[in-house]
Amino acid sequence: MQGRLVECVPNISEGRRPEVIESVVAAVRDTAGVRLLNVQSDESHNCSVITFVGDPNACGQAAVALALRAVEVIDMRQHKGEHPRLGAVDVIPFVPISGTTMEECVALARRVGQEIWAALGLPVYFYAEAAASPSRVRLPDIRKGEFEGLPEKMAQPEWVPDIGERRPHETAGAVVVGARRLLVAYNINLNTTDVTVARAVARAVRESSGGLTNVQAMGVVAASGWAQVSINLLDLGRTPIARVFDLVRVEAERYGASVAESEIVGLVPLDAILDVARAYLRLRAFERTQVLEALLME
Amino acid sequence: MQGRLVECVPNISEGRRPEVIESVVAAVRDTAGVRLLNVQSDESHNCSVITFVGDPNACGQAAVALALRAVEVIDMRQHKGEHPRLGAVDVIPFVPISGTTMEECVALARRVGQEIWAALGLPVYFYAEAAASPSRVRLPDIRKGEFEGLPEKMAQPEWVPDIGERRPHETAGAVVVGARRLLVAYNINLNTTDVTVARAVARAVRESSGGLTNVQAMGVVAASGWAQVSINLLDLGRTPIARVFDLVRVEAERYGASVAESEIVGLVPLDAILDVARAYLRLRAFERTQVLEALLME
Repeated sequence: MQGRLVECVPNISEGRRPEVIESVVAAVRDTAGVRLLNVQSDESHNCSVITFVGDPNACGQAAVALALRAVEVIDMRQHKGEHPRLGAVDVIPFVPISGTTMEECVALARRVGQEIWAALGLPVYFYAEAAASPSRVRLPDIRKGEFEGLPEKMAQPEWVPDIGERRPHETAGAVVVGARRLLVAYNINLNTTDVTVARAVARAVRESSGGLTNVQAMGVVAASGWAQVSINLLDLGRTPIARVFDLVRVEAERYGASVAESEIVGLVPLDAILDVARAYLRLRAFERTQVLEALLME
Repeated sequence: MQGRLVECVPNISEGRRPEVIESVVAAVRDTAGVRLLNVQSDESHNCSVITFVGDPNACGQAAVALALRAVEVIDMRQHKGEHPRLGAVDVIPFVPISGTTMEECVALARRVGQEIWAALGLPVYFYAEAAASPSRVRLPDIRKGEFEGLPEKMAQPEWVPDIGERRPHETAGAVVVGARRLLVAYNINLNTTDVTVARAVARAVRESSGGLTNVQAMGVVAASGWAQVSINLLDLGRTPIARVFDLVRVEAERYGASVAESEIVGLVPLDAILDVARAYLRLRAFERTQVLEALLME
């Protein structure tokens, strides 16, 4: 698989019937040039998150194929679940991973939205980096009212869809398509059981209370019993892992605590790991293509 | 390309005639399952180093194909060059890169040696980790006497070839096949122009004078004018980059110097970079398959 990679993480409104989920997943699996990485279904939410990667064009094709299949097999008039949702294929985010830009993902989201409307008559809202206005950046704002409230919502001038007519698709509602950065979950365990230290450190390092931009953090007790700073990294290109680790380390020292260990939860792009090596080894001019396995992907 | 990777770095005795070099390189390029990474020809040495990677079987096939072609197009009776050499295809080292072991590379070297003898009647010496005796571990010992001295050398009981008869191939001499670890060149620049500091640090960190095992080092003046500790890392799995960097940093501090920057020269395996992140972020249970691009290679 080549170096130009986009990740797509669509959310479909079916988390209970395996044959329906598999039918939608198959649409992705059958698209050339994409690789299915993960399917996570939640019964109580009654939705599934499907993760796949590939070059931008292939990801776009797979996303459209997935939307077509989802609308064919999911009827929102029968759907119940804990998780807010607007339609059968609820949200389709594109994430630049490597060799691709946010601008490309925004353009991809727009094109996929056009194709979905043309093929299905399913109205489209663009969100996050692809949003057409500030009021449509946040997913919860767009989802408010959910599938059942769509006729009323779309009647309001401020909720005219970005593409399509001002009425929901009868069985599939509407779809939200967009582009966003990769989010990496990162936990740092301190060698103390005092959760108040982890909370103080979290306050010090997170954006919302005077810390680093692109960082969300909270202090919790880890399963192991140790105090943990639980972090979301929202933009690894601007606020890299090493900077966050070292600030946590320094802030913890103010309380006599130190970092016992840290944990990257789930997937992380190679560039983020190369940045760790660059930071600590003070590497100059270290290129991705010097990593043997990365060179093989060129 | 899949995760089980071996690197093969054969040295052929032709560095001047592009059409001859290309003919040998083509034998590698035409082998399915290997990827040609680099061809480096030296006119004064009159030899070329060809680097390719692939799964063990494919690398073995490519190495045999390369040997057949080299013996076909190179006549050592006409060969002159600065660099010591024993034959047309002088040395064929196999290097475990990822998902493969040294034992596999030793077995591969042995098999390739057998095939080369069977196909060409070219006598074979095994060296490095594949050596049959301690006197055959080092390449310079085997090469001593060179192509021209082979009849005399092979007449000595201690230089009976490991495979084949006790006389050189008329035009191709003999071949040395073996398995060795990946060698990574790594330079650390100090923020001083005093080369005696770099020399003292090199003495402190290298194996030969009481430092770290698997480390060769010397103090030099870098092109930029700064004092540089120039390092070869011989076994990244046992003596990782982070340990070497930090010992250089600490030893430099004894002279009031600090590390300005460091540089990885050429290729490095992904695992070595993951180990840097593991060391500095104190990562527990961080797997290669958490790196998105590595997952795609599975």
